[in-house]
Amino acid sequence: MNGSVSPKQFVLDEETHSSSSDTASLIDRRGTEHDAGADEPVRYPPGVLSEEEKALPRRQNHLAVRIPTRQEVLDARTRPKQRPRRLGIVVPGLLALLGFAFLSTWVLSLGTQFGDQHRIQVILMISDGMGPASETMARSFVQYLASTNSSSSNFKRSLLNESSWTDLEDSYRGKGSMGGMLPLDEILVGSSRTRSSNSLITDSAAGATAFSCGVKTYNGAIGVTPSLQPCGTVLEAAKRQGYMTGLVATSRITHATPASFYAHVPDRDLESEIAEFLVGEDGSALKGLRVDFAFGGGKCFFLPNGTDGSCRTDGKDMLGAAKAKGVRVVDGMTALRAYKDEDSVDEPVLGLFASDHMEYEADRQRITALADEQPSLKEMATHALRYLSRKAKDNKGFFLMIEGSRIDMAAHNNDPVGHLSDMLAYQQTVQYVKEWVDAQNEQGTPTMLISVSDHETGGLALGRQLGEAYPEYLWYPDALVNATHSSSYLGSLFASRYPAATRDWVISELFEKGLGIVDAAEWEVDAVWKMRQDAYGANRALADAISRRAQLGWSTAGHSGVDVNLYAYGYNSTGLTGNVENTDIGLHIAENMRLNLDVVTIELGKGQSSWFDAKAGNETTRTRTTGLGHYHGDF
Amino acid sequence: MNGSVSPKQFVLDEETHSSSSDTASLIDRRGTEHDAGADEPVRYPPGVLSEEEKALPRRQNHLAVRIPTRQEVLDARTRPKQRPRRLGIVVPGLLALLGFAFLSTWVLSLGTQFGDQHRIQVILMISDGMGPASETMARSFVQYLASTNSSSSNFKRSLLNESSWTDLEDSYRGKGSMGGMLPLDEILVGSSRTRSSNSLITDSAAGATAFSCGVKTYNGAIGVTPSLQPCGTVLEAAKRQGYMTGLVATSRITHATPASFYAHVPDRDLESEIAEFLVGEDGSALKGLRVDFAFGGGKCFFLPNGTDGSCRTDGKDMLGAAKAKGVRVVDGMTALRAYKDEDSVDEPVLGLFASDHMEYEADRQRITALADEQPSLKEMATHALRYLSRKAKDNKGFFLMIEGSRIDMAAHNNDPVGHLSDMLAYQQTVQYVKEWVDAQNEQGTPTMLISVSDHETGGLALGRQLGEAYPEYLWYPDALVNATHSSSYLGSLFASRYPAATRDWVISELFEKGLGIVDAAEWEVDAVWKMRQDAYGANRALADAISRRAQLGWSTAGHSGVDVNLYAYGYNSTGLTGNVENTDIGLHIAENMRLNLDVVTIELGKGQSSWFDAKAGNETTRTRTTGLGHYHGDF
Ligand SMILES: [Zn+2]
Ligand SMILES: [Zn+2]
Repeated sequence: MNGSVSPKQFVLDEETHSSSSDTASLIDRRGTEHDAGADEPVRYPPGVLSEEEKALPRRQNHLAVRIPTRQEVLDARTRPKQRPRRLGIVVPGLLALLGFAFLSTWVLSLGTQFGDQHRIQVILMISDGMGPASETMARSFVQYLASTNSSSSNFKRSLLNESSWTDLEDSYRGKGSMGGMLPLDEILVGSSRTRSSNSLITDSAAGATAFSCGVKTYNGAIGVTPSLQPCGTVLEAAKRQGYMTGLVATSRITHATPASFYAHVPDRDLESEIAEFLVGEDGSALKGLRVDFAFGGGKCFFLPNGTDGSCRTDGKDMLGAAKAKGVRVVDGMTALRAYKDEDSVDEPVLGLFASDHMEYEADRQRITALADEQPSLKEMATHALRYLSRKAKDNKGFFLMIEGSRIDMAAHNNDPVGHLSDMLAYQQTVQYVKEWVDAQNEQGTPTMLISVSDHETGGLALGRQLGEAYPEYLWYPDALVNATHSSSYLGSLFASRYPAATRDWVISELFEKGLGIVDAAEWEVDAVWKMRQDAYGANRALADAISRRAQLGWSTAGHSGVDVNLYAYGYNSTGLTGNVENTDIGLHIAENMRLNLDVVTIELGKGQSSWFDAKAGNETTRTRTTGLGHYHGDF
Repeated sequence: MNGSVSPKQFVLDEETHSSSSDTASLIDRRGTEHDAGADEPVRYPPGVLSEEEKALPRRQNHLAVRIPTRQEVLDARTRPKQRPRRLGIVVPGLLALLGFAFLSTWVLSLGTQFGDQHRIQVILMISDGMGPASETMARSFVQYLASTNSSSSNFKRSLLNESSWTDLEDSYRGKGSMGGMLPLDEILVGSSRTRSSNSLITDSAAGATAFSCGVKTYNGAIGVTPSLQPCGTVLEAAKRQGYMTGLVATSRITHATPASFYAHVPDRDLESEIAEFLVGEDGSALKGLRVDFAFGGGKCFFLPNGTDGSCRTDGKDMLGAAKAKGVRVVDGMTALRAYKDEDSVDEPVLGLFASDHMEYEADRQRITALADEQPSLKEMATHALRYLSRKAKDNKGFFLMIEGSRIDMAAHNNDPVGHLSDMLAYQQTVQYVKEWVDAQNEQGTPTMLISVSDHETGGLALGRQLGEAYPEYLWYPDALVNATHSSSYLGSLFASRYPAATRDWVISELFEKGLGIVDAAEWEVDAVWKMRQDAYGANRALADAISRRAQLGWSTAGHSGVDVNLYAYGYNSTGLTGNVENTDIGLHIAENMRLNLDVVTIELGKGQSSWFDAKAGNETTRTRTTGLGHYHGDF
């Protein structure tokens, strides 16, 4: 309050946007502000930089007399004072004392205590939209399940059917209703601050770019900074330095979270463009084929416009292009059954198991046709680990991102059933990965698991006041236990069955069989019936009915700003603890893998002219990058 | 789902209730289940047990051939399989391997690496009702403040006026709007699971008893187990072993949280009885004078029924009784000004600064009369630390509990202003205590700070959907910045001014001056005006108006079930990390102070016949101790 800081400073991005249009000039602009140690040479690991690259900054701008450090490149991309740094409990004090040149040398020499650091295997798991309350909810639900007799009521028809979740429940057996933790609970190390550069509430694009590039950017940005510069990601840098790379998601593989690791577009909705980044473009510095293994949904963005099941905006055949580049395309479950991990040691793999997003685990499990079409998150993760670790044997290790993508989407619907089912599928995957990590570390291969959310979704509260009366202090996991489907599935089912579907059908098929609700009130049935031609409306009405019974509260169909839980396991699991910025997670990965993100950023800058469809970009970017919201009279 | 666990197991307390009626038989019941190491002698620190106590179990029950360990007594008080244990990251695996006799020896020998463990000073801070979203909210608010020009608009009249909060803001200066952490943020070590024995959502009584006794109990229970046995608390055990003890709260000192450290009643509402526990009763094994230093509100429960300002149910003069016992009573702010910490080295101190709860910090700061009447939380904590550490010099150290009591109460009102103001007062206190802890540890006195919440309140979400349209991803800290008062204060102000207060007065005094809202809509003014004879109604309508402007969501006027953040600093701050049960926090304190809670439990059992007014107890207990709630048709 000393008057020296202007209110505009809070709206940080608007200023940065107007500053400069390419990386070189950004570096230059920043370079003039730096002095300490500016002339000291920076050492990269052998082979990281080609001779050409070493000369790069000089050729681009005569003011830049040396290769900028990662620190400088990062600093150049956002206002320096607005980028907090906290690189783990041992580092912060130290950082302030070190010149940047010495710093980068120190960063590059990190972690030599564990043998050959270049064999490190890093698995970043992202539970999209899973906040602190979600984790508590999932734990209490499984505690309830584990203490409940399976023969009670119609328990066999529950959300968590017997064959699917016994591994999670097993850890609770003998510990009673209050005992037992979820696989993630056992490895909590801190929390992550999630805000983006232009809002206190991030979206998944800015959230994932914080993990991939280690920079704060605006909501909607995929691998680009607030000044619209493409930023080198941990996946790209890993690939460049000889690591294997992989992505697993239950969303479209072109959706915001996975896209932020391999694509650079100013708007997350440019998914046709994003698919091209995944497949790569010959001769493009920007679009390389950098992902060795990708499993997920979203086939429609790989099919040419006009053909069956395409959602591309153009006629490009991206599956064809991928095959032409030697990518092994695993096109659906039949192909996956024929696929052998060991066959594809020398070719990249792209597996697409749904036209759009993959299904919620609850729905996948209950519908034989879906289970025949789509693997679970854990199955996909299993293939990824097998593929990446076999090929990495003679190599440097790998970077793998695994996303439980649809935890978020169910929360957008305020649907506890889909939310829970995908959280449990995620926890099962975590358990599998933890065991795999143990085995790898025991074998002597440093292997690190980090699990974190990009943000909370829905403003979920475990407790909800249903009327004027002062609320009792409880919520009811048992109200969820006989549900069989996500409300999203049920809403679509209704729309697909109408007009054949009657009001009685709504009661028996949606409320009773779908949600396990046997006491639906007239007004609740009305609310759904009214939406007989609106799948989303029916979805929301059903989600509300089961949320009220469980006494779960939701504040929004969007995201919320609460810090999210940070989990770590395996190698250097104590390297990043406490309350950290989401960008610190990306930087922590880069440090542990000794990645040089700057070099990638510079390379990407070279390809920038062919970067994206300028018209499409400009159109959407203007609304995306508006400054940090201030209250202006809407309530 | 193997059918071997009955659904009733989830309702654990009902069974325990019927089992046995005194501690000895509980011990016995448990003793028959144990075998490993059962005959090995258990060593206590010298002087902890009198000869009489050593003989105690033998005399009570011939089957108990030795003194039960704390572990056994604790196990005996709840169903053994339903008490999860996780005593920090180094312990869990070990625990399973150790016989209980060896274990207790090991527990007693803990921590000898830091000199004389008996000089340990432990400060437990409790932020009542502060969930994960609250911490994020407070941080983002201060980040906003620190980056905002104080000359803008009517900023000087803000919630955080310049003179009061500069210390918090200072840590943000130069770090920009995204930089800076709150004093708590810097010391996050994990999270605490909060459920009580009879609900997934705890109240403050069960929550504080988990911290004080290390047991899960039912909502409403003050220092008693689900089977209605008084349980020894860390404060009582500390006092018994020669430590100094202290309590600071901004609520009535007889309110649930502080009460759970010194009182044993089956219902939190028995505050007249609770006050007697604080003062002590001659010759009572149950009611000793065990608190050396107590500062807070709630004088009314110490004045005899019928006298001015009393809320006691009987005619006992507890202030008189306290004085007769040599307690120095600091009766209000005038007395506090005359009070010198060094004068009272040899007498207990009881400071009462409000008839009821103390005021929210926002209100206290803005109203000179209140600031003249009441100290801040930090001021009270300062006196406590000075008193306890001076007297502890020749002694063993101390246990001090400091509660930010009303963080919770504002959240019950869904009032972001009161919530924020008391969180910031709490953070200021944390900052002061951290510095004090540093100084003590530097001097060589092992000093430990733990900060945790008992539960979340309100189901706060940083993000709120105001209409049907898909919400933007943002919330507005700036909408809170010109508020000057809690909505609770404003509601009462309105009721006290009506009928003189007009509708225009509501607009100018409540909306504009009170909340900084200059764009109140007609319907919003109506909503408040309608409540002109209902202070609580007006309070809630005002709280809603400012919550909507900030786009903050609330799901309930009660508590919620989300895990809460766990913070630790100073000596052994890494001793308890990750996701822990709230009971582990009490046990962690007991271990670090080498406290023997069992002996206290046994002693309390002796005084049980005079324990509490049986009629009052039975009446309320029946509703309090009902089993874990199951959904039964209310939605
Ligand atoms: Zn997301
Ligand atoms: Zn509380």
